[in-house]
Amino acid sequence: MAAYNDRPMTDAAAAEPLFLRACRRQPVERTPIWMMRQAGRYLPSYRAVRSRASFLEMCRTPALACEVTLQPIDQFGFDAAILFSDILVTLPPMGLEVAFPEKGPVIADPVRDRAAIDRLVVPDPVAELPYVMEAVRQIRAGLAGRVPLIGFAGAPFTLVTYAVEGGGSKDYVNTKRLLFGDPEAAHALLEKMADTVAAYLAAQVEAGAQAVQLFDSWAGILSPRDFEEYALRWARHVIARLRAHPAVAAAGVPVIYFVNGCAPYLDSYPTSGADVLGVDWRIELATVRRRVGDGVALQGNLDPGALFLPPDALRARVEAILDEGGPRGHIFNLGHGVTPPTDPERVRVMVETVKARRWDGR
Amino acid sequence: MAAYNDRPMTDAAAAEPLFLRACRRQPVERTPIWMMRQAGRYLPSYRAVRSRASFLEMCRTPALACEVTLQPIDQFGFDAAILFSDILVTLPPMGLEVAFPEKGPVIADPVRDRAAIDRLVVPDPVAELPYVMEAVRQIRAGLAGRVPLIGFAGAPFTLVTYAVEGGGSKDYVNTKRLLFGDPEAAHALLEKMADTVAAYLAAQVEAGAQAVQLFDSWAGILSPRDFEEYALRWARHVIARLRAHPAVAAAGVPVIYFVNGCAPYLDSYPTSGADVLGVDWRIELATVRRRVGDGVALQGNLDPGALFLPPDALRARVEAILDEGGPRGHIFNLGHGVTPPTDPERVRVMVETVKARRWDGR
Repeated sequence: MAAYNDRPMTDAAAAEPLFLRACRRQPVERTPIWMMRQAGRYLPSYRAVRSRASFLEMCRTPALACEVTLQPIDQFGFDAAILFSDILVTLPPMGLEVAFPEKGPVIADPVRDRAAIDRLVVPDPVAELPYVMEAVRQIRAGLAGRVPLIGFAGAPFTLVTYAVEGGGSKDYVNTKRLLFGDPEAAHALLEKMADTVAAYLAAQVEAGAQAVQLFDSWAGILSPRDFEEYALRWARHVIARLRAHPAVAAAGVPVIYFVNGCAPYLDSYPTSGADVLGVDWRIELATVRRRVGDGVALQGNLDPGALFLPPDALRARVEAILDEGGPRGHIFNLGHGVTPPTDPERVRVMVETVKARRWDGR
Repeated sequence: MAAYNDRPMTDAAAAEPLFLRACRRQPVERTPIWMMRQAGRYLPSYRAVRSRASFLEMCRTPALACEVTLQPIDQFGFDAAILFSDILVTLPPMGLEVAFPEKGPVIADPVRDRAAIDRLVVPDPVAELPYVMEAVRQIRAGLAGRVPLIGFAGAPFTLVTYAVEGGGSKDYVNTKRLLFGDPEAAHALLEKMADTVAAYLAAQVEAGAQAVQLFDSWAGILSPRDFEEYALRWARHVIARLRAHPAVAAAGVPVIYFVNGCAPYLDSYPTSGADVLGVDWRIELATVRRRVGDGVALQGNLDPGALFLPPDALRARVEAILDEGGPRGHIFNLGHGVTPPTDPERVRVMVETVKARRWDGR
């Protein structure tokens, strides 16, 4: 854990954005909020852009990525922006083409054996993904200091599941076959993913990202021992690499590690090296805090489905999470991405409820 | 919890099948084993039957259901048989037609509002599902007392997810919309499912099932409070109804409740009223035992993917689970259903390893 986590608030720290202070467990006057997939299909203004361009075109066109990234900041006043992109953009430069039909991503030629793994390259992300770096620069300019920008990438294990299954999966049989049938090959693949992701996130920071989140969306399919061996170990590798990078170290860029379905792993989860642990909605935030201690900030964890509640019931759930999160080291978020049929007015209720809760004097 | 759980072993109890004794936390000479989906596509003999009949025909033809139910008993010597059927067979008599294409079940006309819920009926399972009761009778005859037969049903919440989504789902948005947008309608639907399932399981017991398992395959998508309100509450309703049924009470039929992804719910899970709690592979059995106490038996929890391990590594994982499960109140099983590409010879290694561990004198 970086030393700044425990330093007392100074005038300089107080001038820092709310979101970054919460990541560092510094005092805040209120809990900051952002929302996974806040630039997404629930927003009419997003769907308007999407009607003119494919998902991939939006990712690859910095002006469009910038436009949709800023929409939820302008409309709801979230306390952080997150780069509009996809966790799979690192796969094509490694040698794996990805298509994005409506039903979810498809990798036509999935990686199933050692030979396919050995053919993958660890790309130079600045040279291979220039549109991402340009989007980061344009978003920073568009934000003009209003709120910080979060960069992100898929965590190595989650990227492996996509590369091996060729997309999403019900039971992840091909992934399990690789892990258990040829662990050496699995680790070779994980290492290539980890090296790629570490370099990619460092490049995002150099381009202007002020925090980064590592999404381990599918780490929750593993037993606790396999989580440590195949997911956590390589997330830790990415985070350690990243911390050693001069641009990241100099700015003290907070790292968020999000494991969807983290409940079984609370003993090992806080050893990731991240400043902030993402918490999904399946477990109470208070339970997580009790289990992981005070050395790390927590981010979460409203059930995205709770946005279907009537406003009063929604407010009560938001208040309960604010109570559990407490005044120090909590970033309000959903426990997973917002779903397309969500009413934006409910998002507004959530944001207003979070912003109305003050922690003055604590 | 039934009183027989804690009675000392008598000669009569010792003569009871191993599996039933373990369900009741009575002394056993070794840990019993069965495997979820043990009558399934990983078996060449199952695929031979399947090549002549559709999945639904197999469910609806007692002779075929009986044939595939007995196959894994004959081939591996599992300590319990489980009725070959599907958790969705209760939906058509309620008024919801289900098709079973290769990709998974499809309900063409899903239930999304109060009017659709009000149209559903609570059927008489003996009159409406005679083929299931006949299959139970034929299997009991075919088993000829070798091992007990487990009946089963989908738990109310899991059946609701299928009825509402029209099949499987990625984010269960329609289910969440119903639960959070109209909780009264959701409970009306859950109650119809619960009443149907309770009557259906009682009918299976009357036909000859010696234990029953309630599958809550999708309860793991809920926050802990919603798990209690929407899943556990109605599983408890089913179990209480079932225990009050004369045939079930007279035989002391053990009830197994299986929540896939149970790790977040360990505080409330043991209050289901079940004799046995199913444990998926995402959490260590020792952790579950520590959290739920000694008042209930546990069933699980090898990762189905671990059957891809080389034999020696597989044996080591099986041994570790036997150690965690200990000599009292543990039934060895996978943490979820066996997957089709599994090598039956690995299943044999698992069974032999479990059977070789003796608990004599404990």
